[in-house]
Amino acid sequence: MAEWAERLTGVRGVLLDISGVLCDSSASGATTIAGSVEAVARLKRSPLKVRFCTNESQKSLRELVGVLQQLGFDISEEEVTAPAPATCQILKERGLRPHLLIHEGVRSEFDDIDTSNPNCVVIADAGEAFSYQNMNRAFQVLMELENPVLISLGKGRYYKETSGLMLDVGGYMKALEYACGIKAEVVGKPSPEFFKSALQAIGLEAHQAIMIGDDIVGDVGGAQQCGMRALQVRTGKFRPGDEHHPEVQADGYVDNLAEAVDLLLKYTDK
Amino acid sequence: MAEWAERLTGVRGVLLDISGVLCDSSASGATTIAGSVEAVARLKRSPLKVRFCTNESQKSLRELVGVLQQLGFDISEEEVTAPAPATCQILKERGLRPHLLIHEGVRSEFDDIDTSNPNCVVIADAGEAFSYQNMNRAFQVLMELENPVLISLGKGRYYKETSGLMLDVGGYMKALEYACGIKAEVVGKPSPEFFKSALQAIGLEAHQAIMIGDDIVGDVGGAQQCGMRALQVRTGKFRPGDEHHPEVQADGYVDNLAEAVDLLLKYTDK
Repeated sequence: MAEWAERLTGVRGVLLDISGVLCDSSASGATTIAGSVEAVARLKRSPLKVRFCTNESQKSLRELVGVLQQLGFDISEEEVTAPAPATCQILKERGLRPHLLIHEGVRSEFDDIDTSNPNCVVIADAGEAFSYQNMNRAFQVLMELENPVLISLGKGRYYKETSGLMLDVGGYMKALEYACGIKAEVVGKPSPEFFKSALQAIGLEAHQAIMIGDDIVGDVGGAQQCGMRALQVRTGKFRPGDEHHPEVQADGYVDNLAEAVDLLLKYTDK
Repeated sequence: MAEWAERLTGVRGVLLDISGVLCDSSASGATTIAGSVEAVARLKRSPLKVRFCTNESQKSLRELVGVLQQLGFDISEEEVTAPAPATCQILKERGLRPHLLIHEGVRSEFDDIDTSNPNCVVIADAGEAFSYQNMNRAFQVLMELENPVLISLGKGRYYKETSGLMLDVGGYMKALEYACGIKAEVVGKPSPEFFKSALQAIGLEAHQAIMIGDDIVGDVGGAQQCGMRALQVRTGKFRPGDEHHPEVQADGYVDNLAEAVDLLLKYTDK
């Protein structure tokens, strides 16, 4: 692999995944990944532009940012690209009234969305709310529509909590796709539109930015598909096999965000 | 389409789907589809061989047959090809110890199967037992295995209860396939092995048999892939769009089992 200086040449901004990079989450809360608070602070003092790009869909943006601030992170709502606000914009633009299969924690994001007489289904990482009854209701709504529209906030396979690996929304999206014979629209990583909206927010082109994430497919593969570079951290849901993934090779693997920031500050153009 | 006489020439036996053809099921029990009790009786008095071929996996074979007998059907356990007994045979042959994600009603079928220290996962139409917690446990078991084996009892998209369409096991199979990056083995229709074992039980070749079912893909498409002919009944989960399915065309569409039997008795070789 080329030297770091070569791999990082021309990088002017960073997209940061949150869960698994900044912190690990569990049923009882979130815990900082060692060195990440300082790493974010150092990045923000540098000339590099910084944007947070998350698929978090169990919490409202306000709550997510609140938790991160409590952990000591320098972050504000305006600096985060997240799927729930992006979905609300799409729903409004297209006159869609969703049946929501989502976590209670994110419901407030949809407070000003008309959910009467649904003409689409929105699913997110609903956790325990992915009961048979709730899945069946979403399925029935879709089957009753002439043109069924299913919007999925991300399509992650799983994420890591301190108690172990947990099923993410992706499998449930696949279940509804199969049962209804339809294809979902994904809002969130690895959707190119989602990465592009994050880049737009910091005024950079894809070739000027690098994604840092723990998901080899959703973060690294998705960003690369968009023309960005991407590093995988060996924290969060990282598994050793990721470094030999059959389809995706990161532009670099680092132990954690702190190491990624060391390298970025050392090798990117000043 | 050719005349019925031509379409049914050389048929010497019938495979009958149960749910949606003989009866409709609901949370509170099963109700006969009009004319089906008499239709089965007439078939069994004819020279045609008859075998029941079901993906039922919420009830044990004994309970299923008991319910059908109470409804008046002439049926015995020995005449039914069902996925749970077929799965038990596979588990024993291959030394597999399953983690079971199944409906309580079918658990007794697995009474003499070793489920300690699981080295595979078996899923069936678990209904309400498809909770997030149970799905997550099955997922975690698979992720901990070096060579994850997932066996699915059928891969139906949905079935019809009197209260409406209900998600079947297929979507949940797809969810685990996606989350774990694996491919499930299907025991049940439309697996060719499953149809073949039903044919073997009545000593017929595929070209001598016709399947009658309500599922255009699982029953009709599956049987045709095996070299059988197949009729779709307009009962059970039948939907009008099935008659213009993009991939599967039945050898005939009939209003119900009674009409199918009328045609079979009239046009098959005596």
